[in-house]
Amino acid sequence: MPPTITAFDRSPDGGKGLARDTRVRWALEEVGQPYEVRLVSFQAMKEPAHLVLHPFGQIPTYEEGDLALFETGSIVLHIAERHAGLLPDDANARARAISWMFAAVNTVEPPILELMTARILESDKPWTKERLPLVMDRVRDRLNQLAARLGDADWLDGAFSAGDLMMVSVLLRLRASGILDEYPGLAAYVARGEARPAYRRAFEAQRAVNTR
Amino acid sequence: MPPTITAFDRSPDGGKGLARDTRVRWALEEVGQPYEVRLVSFQAMKEPAHLVLHPFGQIPTYEEGDLALFETGSIVLHIAERHAGLLPDDANARARAISWMFAAVNTVEPPILELMTARILESDKPWTKERLPLVMDRVRDRLNQLAARLGDADWLDGAFSAGDLMMVSVLLRLRASGILDEYPGLAAYVARGEARPAYRRAFEAQRAVNTR
Repeated sequence: MPPTITAFDRSPDGGKGLARDTRVRWALEEVGQPYEVRLVSFQAMKEPAHLVLHPFGQIPTYEEGDLALFETGSIVLHIAERHAGLLPDDANARARAISWMFAAVNTVEPPILELMTARILESDKPWTKERLPLVMDRVRDRLNQLAARLGDADWLDGAFSAGDLMMVSVLLRLRASGILDEYPGLAAYVARGEARPAYRRAFEAQRAVNTR
Repeated sequence: MPPTITAFDRSPDGGKGLARDTRVRWALEEVGQPYEVRLVSFQAMKEPAHLVLHPFGQIPTYEEGDLALFETGSIVLHIAERHAGLLPDDANARARAISWMFAAVNTVEPPILELMTARILESDKPWTKERLPLVMDRVRDRLNQLAARLGDADWLDGAFSAGDLMMVSVLLRLRASGILDEYPGLAAYVARGEARPAYRRAFEAQRAVNTR
């Protein structure tokens, strides 16, 4: 039985691939594992049947036999630990790849989430125009450091890993803001991620749902 | 050779235990592993010798032989994977505990970080008084869901795990805001974490540095 993931019945981004199920689809495609998708509406996500799977009422979830997981990072790690292709064999390199997974979600994504909140949830507030440059600069602080570390390398630490999968996914959320264009090295890094056949398949699968 | 972690030479919180080295100290104390600490100044954290260890110029880092890790979540996971005491033996329960680790840093902590940013970095801005209630409500959204899931249980999923260690550590950052007091169940959960002997030892160790 393939695992079942959940995804938005209708993604707020209309199929641009920014909903977090894309990250899990991408991981499953990288390791060549088939999967099934159960679509959930915004309303259903807040109901008890879904909250049992995801206490914060979000997608994606991951069900495999009697295992049920939530949180994209842990689902991607679970997939990466059980199938070849997303984590190095060497124990130290593997631990470093996991550091990059956490860096993506706990160091780079929070200021990006704050920027999205400012641009979307607070777009009509009187302070947003004046405040936005501050929020953007906090994003830039992280991107400066990330770009310095990446340098001319293709990926963050040797071969492509789950750390890159998560970091590219987080950076993709910046594209609409224009900030990514200020960092040609990071833009090229994101483009390398998007060019991977596994990413293409994941992207097309979520787009098919959202443009049906 | 015990591992070496880095911590602030002088923590911005003056020893309240909110700097992230406390999370790593706590994990090491839970599994009974001795460790060494190298203190770094704010200036040294931004210099090349530290940026090699931590690309974002933060603490803590973790060095053990020829392995160097950054990101608290990955360091705690590394410790939990190698020593008994922080992850269940059952594979499914172990994967769920890791879900809670990611939930702590990617779902619960981001709105808390945003609140800290509003209260500290933006405290002098003209919009902060009017904006703060919105930010606090976004924190409450998460706490409502977390409190509902925890219910009357002692810990999030069976026995105490690295997921609880990370979640309690994240919630501790809320104490100064008063929001935690609105959730007696979560306040008791945090207090259970703080009452653990391993937490006490970790807390006292970081306090000793910051009050010397």
